[in-house]
Amino acid sequence: MIGIVRAVYESYGFEPIETPAFENIETLLGKYGEEGNKLIFKILKRGEHEASGEADLALRYDLTVPLARVIAQYQNELPKFFKRYQIQPVWRADRPARGRFREFYQCDIDAIGSTSPIVEVELLAAVSEVLTRLGFRDFVVRLNDRRLLAALMESCAVAPERYADVLVSIDKLDKIGRDAVRQDLLQRGIDAGAADKLLDAFTVGSAASSDDLARAAGASETGKAAVESLREIVTACAGTAAAGRVKLDPSLARGLSYYTGAIMEIAVPDLAGSLGGGGRYDNLIGMFLGRDVPACGFSLGLERIIVVMTERGMFPGAVARGAADVMVALWNESSRGDAIALARELRAGRLRTEVYPDADKLGKQFKYASSRKFPYVAIVGDDERASGTVAVKNLATGAQEAMPRADAADYIRRQLSQA
Amino acid sequence: MIGIVRAVYESYGFEPIETPAFENIETLLGKYGEEGNKLIFKILKRGEHEASGEADLALRYDLTVPLARVIAQYQNELPKFFKRYQIQPVWRADRPARGRFREFYQCDIDAIGSTSPIVEVELLAAVSEVLTRLGFRDFVVRLNDRRLLAALMESCAVAPERYADVLVSIDKLDKIGRDAVRQDLLQRGIDAGAADKLLDAFTVGSAASSDDLARAAGASETGKAAVESLREIVTACAGTAAAGRVKLDPSLARGLSYYTGAIMEIAVPDLAGSLGGGGRYDNLIGMFLGRDVPACGFSLGLERIIVVMTERGMFPGAVARGAADVMVALWNESSRGDAIALARELRAGRLRTEVYPDADKLGKQFKYASSRKFPYVAIVGDDERASGTVAVKNLATGAQEAMPRADAADYIRRQLSQA
Repeated sequence: MIGIVRAVYESYGFEPIETPAFENIETLLGKYGEEGNKLIFKILKRGEHEASGEADLALRYDLTVPLARVIAQYQNELPKFFKRYQIQPVWRADRPARGRFREFYQCDIDAIGSTSPIVEVELLAAVSEVLTRLGFRDFVVRLNDRRLLAALMESCAVAPERYADVLVSIDKLDKIGRDAVRQDLLQRGIDAGAADKLLDAFTVGSAASSDDLARAAGASETGKAAVESLREIVTACAGTAAAGRVKLDPSLARGLSYYTGAIMEIAVPDLAGSLGGGGRYDNLIGMFLGRDVPACGFSLGLERIIVVMTERGMFPGAVARGAADVMVALWNESSRGDAIALARELRAGRLRTEVYPDADKLGKQFKYASSRKFPYVAIVGDDERASGTVAVKNLATGAQEAMPRADAADYIRRQLSQA
Repeated sequence: MIGIVRAVYESYGFEPIETPAFENIETLLGKYGEEGNKLIFKILKRGEHEASGEADLALRYDLTVPLARVIAQYQNELPKFFKRYQIQPVWRADRPARGRFREFYQCDIDAIGSTSPIVEVELLAAVSEVLTRLGFRDFVVRLNDRRLLAALMESCAVAPERYADVLVSIDKLDKIGRDAVRQDLLQRGIDAGAADKLLDAFTVGSAASSDDLARAAGASETGKAAVESLREIVTACAGTAAAGRVKLDPSLARGLSYYTGAIMEIAVPDLAGSLGGGGRYDNLIGMFLGRDVPACGFSLGLERIIVVMTERGMFPGAVARGAADVMVALWNESSRGDAIALARELRAGRLRTEVYPDADKLGKQFKYASSRKFPYVAIVGDDERASGTVAVKNLATGAQEAMPRADAADYIRRQLSQA
């Protein structure tokens, strides 16, 4: 799977990078919203400061913030447009559930340096191509824009400093439903009228038309710009692997606090939560650099994709292949050198070769090889040693043949390629 | 490099596994000796316990202890002999230095379930083959046995409960020299006579003969068994990729506390410290399982190998290859759809393809492509669009050719394969 992800990402011109597992704790705190801060794994200071109970480092929570830190740090060495992919684990102190782990792999692509909607289109094309190659035929790309959400909140008289708070709440619509979100909004100090208006606006229905969105944006200039850019993205996606997948969805909010423009998420019917998500974050790098740099990214969740593929039986039938092509049996304690020398010859002949370590009865050694699905056993007993030969036993048929030692590797390899 | 390590390990019949980045803290504490405990990165408890300053998890310090935990946990599902390889990062709160990082990759092989010296021989053969394939011609495998060290310490009247302490001290001989180690031993409460006797015994010279060792073992039965097993290992290594590399070295102690038998380390002249090390640890799994299981492993340090190879110029000259084979230029704002569609065709033709995101002047786009080492640029301008063609520019020669769009991918691929 990682091979497919890598091949598609590279075909879109993304370059691989890796970042360290931990960052300075200040780099991560405050970037992921109120929920995120709680779920970051924090590392205790070391040495004499250990007893203080303070943390100075934290484990990667996603791949986007570390990327922004790297971009800020190496800004002068990076090209004007920088497109990287990154496939590494991240850690979240979440309650484990189906498809949700405390350690999981993200497969990210990000394009830095351009505000063009081509960036969003290329990202959606690439991740759609990954999913299509993996065999998915029913995924939906949900698409919205943070600027449109801001316009909506403005029109509902929400104060700008409450936007992040409201979005955390709205983001739960999928999971906990309208009534619970309404309750949550009231608890966050949004008045009942505004809460109802917000909920109406956010649930005009998924697959809204861009006209619906334009109405929702009202008079807001940034809202109108958002609708225009969403229109462009949807139109251009028609010529890519994302064709027919993209649905405008005004209820999509995304929990993370760093998004500034388009936001997107990929869903399949049989998984609550998403296979991946992303968006534009034009200000995040500026938090490190003091100067804004446009950026947009998308992250696929490897384990979630595996969960769905496993449950749907989308993986090809597992090939029953042992860890070795041939096992060298050990004739007796004093023939260890012979066994090791034969193993060397077989490995030189491109066979994965295991040496049985103890001088057990041959029957026991054969049984072990069978149980490990090793197809062949090679034996140099006293007779074979005297004549420079080796006995090769096919465990599937039970047939045993003697041959010159120099021929054994070729013989086994030929048999294996015919099987 | 990881590809070579993986291929060699698999040719020896080792199977891949991965373990999580963190373990319960009790799993790691007390396994690595006094120095190790201090260098473990500890993770703060989460949620309401965060303020307590307590740690309940810790980052992998090596790959051996997590393996022992896994073996204990899955003992009934694993074969009698279990051979696994694992290539993952580990974390140590060490002071960074040349070839020493706080996050680094270990490439481990371990064989569980047998006390046969074949195990040690196969491990040394595999890691020697890795280093040989990478181009090393001058590495030395230092070999010793913890039982022999115990016999030595016994003969110097060191109390068994001080053995671990003395070994931590002796392990520094390489780094800080005889006088400083003597000082350290005295501070640890070893008397001056014993300290001198120990230092003499540990420094009979590297490349000692097994007769020297037998003398050192004296009357100790376990000491004699250790010498016998070292002899067997050296003899059998002669038939492997480790031939001529193995030197008995009574001063080799290894810092980790879990070794019980053979210990080994690989050194090159131009690196203080080792490229890798390992040994037999027959009791470690028992610490989790309550029942001892024989085990032996070896770990190569990826970054240290890279440091030496880089300094020696052992890597083949870097091939100047950009992240894309061809860049699609953007003619104007309204031709985004065309550019994206052309990129799709080129990618379908197995070309790594980048789309320039902004409608900058063509000269600027060409310049950017050159700077990124993209060899070709493809352009669909107004004329090309009208005639269903594409202009392909070779940035090295400056030559530009028009051709039917359907031919472009084949054309570029052919040119690239001739370059």
